[in-house]
Amino acid sequence: MTDTVLRAASDRDRAEYVTAKMDATMAAASPVDTRPRVVIVGAGFGGLVAARALRKVAAKVTVIDRRNYHLFQPLLYQVATAGLSPADIASPIRGILRDQANAEVLMARVTGVDRARREVMIDGSERRIPYDYLIIAAGARHAYFGHDEWEDVAPGLKKIDDATAIRHRILVAFEKAETTADPEERRRLLTFVIVGGGPTGVEMAGAIAELAKMTLVKDFRTIDPASARVILVEGGPRVLLAFPEDLSAKARHSLEKLGVEVLTNTPVELCDAGGVVSAGMRIEARTILWAAGVQAAPAAKWLQADKDRAGRVKVNPDLTVPGEPDIFVIGDNATVVQANGQPVPGVAPAAKQMGQHVARVIAGRIAGKPVATPFRYRNYGNFATIGRHAAVADFGWLKLSGYPAWLLWGAAHIYFLIGFRNRLAVMLDWLWAYVTFQRGVRLITGSGSDS
Amino acid sequence: MTDTVLRAASDRDRAEYVTAKMDATMAAASPVDTRPRVVIVGAGFGGLVAARALRKVAAKVTVIDRRNYHLFQPLLYQVATAGLSPADIASPIRGILRDQANAEVLMARVTGVDRARREVMIDGSERRIPYDYLIIAAGARHAYFGHDEWEDVAPGLKKIDDATAIRHRILVAFEKAETTADPEERRRLLTFVIVGGGPTGVEMAGAIAELAKMTLVKDFRTIDPASARVILVEGGPRVLLAFPEDLSAKARHSLEKLGVEVLTNTPVELCDAGGVVSAGMRIEARTILWAAGVQAAPAAKWLQADKDRAGRVKVNPDLTVPGEPDIFVIGDNATVVQANGQPVPGVAPAAKQMGQHVARVIAGRIAGKPVATPFRYRNYGNFATIGRHAAVADFGWLKLSGYPAWLLWGAAHIYFLIGFRNRLAVMLDWLWAYVTFQRGVRLITGSGSDS
Repeated sequence: MTDTVLRAASDRDRAEYVTAKMDATMAAASPVDTRPRVVIVGAGFGGLVAARALRKVAAKVTVIDRRNYHLFQPLLYQVATAGLSPADIASPIRGILRDQANAEVLMARVTGVDRARREVMIDGSERRIPYDYLIIAAGARHAYFGHDEWEDVAPGLKKIDDATAIRHRILVAFEKAETTADPEERRRLLTFVIVGGGPTGVEMAGAIAELAKMTLVKDFRTIDPASARVILVEGGPRVLLAFPEDLSAKARHSLEKLGVEVLTNTPVELCDAGGVVSAGMRIEARTILWAAGVQAAPAAKWLQADKDRAGRVKVNPDLTVPGEPDIFVIGDNATVVQANGQPVPGVAPAAKQMGQHVARVIAGRIAGKPVATPFRYRNYGNFATIGRHAAVADFGWLKLSGYPAWLLWGAAHIYFLIGFRNRLAVMLDWLWAYVTFQRGVRLITGSGSDS
Repeated sequence: MTDTVLRAASDRDRAEYVTAKMDATMAAASPVDTRPRVVIVGAGFGGLVAARALRKVAAKVTVIDRRNYHLFQPLLYQVATAGLSPADIASPIRGILRDQANAEVLMARVTGVDRARREVMIDGSERRIPYDYLIIAAGARHAYFGHDEWEDVAPGLKKIDDATAIRHRILVAFEKAETTADPEERRRLLTFVIVGGGPTGVEMAGAIAELAKMTLVKDFRTIDPASARVILVEGGPRVLLAFPEDLSAKARHSLEKLGVEVLTNTPVELCDAGGVVSAGMRIEARTILWAAGVQAAPAAKWLQADKDRAGRVKVNPDLTVPGEPDIFVIGDNATVVQANGQPVPGVAPAAKQMGQHVARVIAGRIAGKPVATPFRYRNYGNFATIGRHAAVADFGWLKLSGYPAWLLWGAAHIYFLIGFRNRLAVMLDWLWAYVTFQRGVRLITGSGSDS
């Protein structure tokens, strides 16, 4: 025993020495650092691009995020439908910024901004993060148009935990349908309602239909998973409203070929644990998924700034907050009308371009060469995919649908996935799924949203 | 609107038709099926091997598991230490048994066995599952030697949810250490205690040391992750008690080379949220992981059968329960002394061999050619791995350690992983980790065990 106690004691000394050394390093570093401090709230597409674009600028960049990973949100629906693992589409922020010497990462939840003292406040800590320039890129959550009580019965899809909870719900519905003796309940369990016909809703509906009709079809002995109903409910006149009408029609056709029932002009009036009521008609369903509308992070509240109905801060054409030339709001957190009168859409490429723009503005100011160009969104193309072999792509000058659009969608999404390993892993998962019709991630883990 | 309502109505008719058809099929199938019913509780190594081995037998096989996936438990510690994704080591049971026409899968929690009526009872349902032969292979959970209150502060590793909760805890400890201003607390956050020096404890300690000293080393700006202390606390005289003494010594040496502090003859007397007390000495630590001892699933209670201290049912040499020739208990759920006086160890190969044995016995009885050979465990080799490049392997006639053992360990574990896709995915993850020293699954998801 004596030797282990001795060893433990000497190790404790070593630990004390190391800690003392760290404290000394921290104390020594602070007084000499006079670089302007750029604080970025949110490590989504906008925030991360801004941080990377500042890598050669003489500034101290601090990225604050509630989570420790950047999420490739466009593929989140594939996690929710058991096609990909969370780690395939998420990459630790510290890893992404590891080699960027002027950047540090802070995992914390922002609770407010003290504009007078130029400090960001964080949850559960007295510590405040001082800034010279502040970029808010905290994104958006799904919203229920004043019906927050629907969230429990109709979960939305914005975070990894949302996706694994939805995966849990979908897979458990099939399991329960297999064991229930009540035919009414079985029918309800095998009915999946997706509310909202934007890209997320369309992609989820297509993926669930494929899961039921192809992947699970031989897995059960009592039920026929292929008899599952997948119903996409959209309040507007057509799905994919942001796309040209002919592509909307093609997307609807592709969905219907997969067996998805598409209801348009059918706003949802009520959601409960047993179904939805839309346009006066009740649809009995145990699984309701929400893909209709978003609400921006509360940056407007933090800044006491003007916002639109979706909670997005109304920013100047250069993305600064009115009256606050050193505070920028970008991505889904902001709403801005461009010089041509067009609003900037709430898509990933727009957030990335905004991040780039803001970094350029800040770099110019730090270098003493201010740039005053307003932000202009360049639309390089818009995608939505509908299961295997079908997608729509709108490049403005070119419209694609069907198989060519799907191939291009796959290539583009793998290309833009951050991190070499994730690209490889996703390619492998997709190749396997394509060849075998199987989905490898059909795991019912956690208590999901049942708890 | 009219056309969508009409379409919805006709779809409802279709759904009613399909459901009616399913009801008819179910009703029609039941009366003609006179095959003996084999019910298997648990789809771990033992249960699944038994089910597969019965594939050509004229029996109706029902596999009941609380989860919808088979878990490759030997690699679970890699999920807990951010090396692999859950889906890499788990495979849906329905997928594994999809093409086995005589097998069905039921996702349910068993609550008891009615031996008189020969039925298995399940949670939350009036339904009972009748059997002619019953195989119980429900495995084990970690145990706290009567200190269940330690579970919250010292989680164990048996399920995927355990692994993701432990991953959450380890990664959050580094994040909190980076932001805390208190050097005492920082030291506590950077101390990881693993209780139990069996294979799981040894593998976890090695993996956490590597995570801190190699993977995370450049990720932080304030703390030095390499200064983290990893302490393995074992109550017995050496680590890997089931291995020969020289291999234990080699494992200890490999651990110490990785910077792990190994304390033997040091039983833990107390665990709380701030550390452990063992052999009268307090070690301050925010992360305590439990790898010391298991408790079998409550099969003994279900059967009112004799059990040992770890809750394992004492079975006959042919693995039947005394007085119940049609009920078998196998794997970690059973304890059996072989003809040579040796107990069967609680390892995966033993569970698989037991599953094989029981299937052969049942097949013989169904075919009217009963076999009465007692079960005999064949030890084809035992492995434990300690990070990169080091492992110990004991084949009885051959003992290996270091790099050759590690290579063999990797090959064997990939070979035994169920499912072609999982093998590929794991190989890719490992190759990537090996070349880059990175771990792709460093995601802090869910609320972990903090909630």
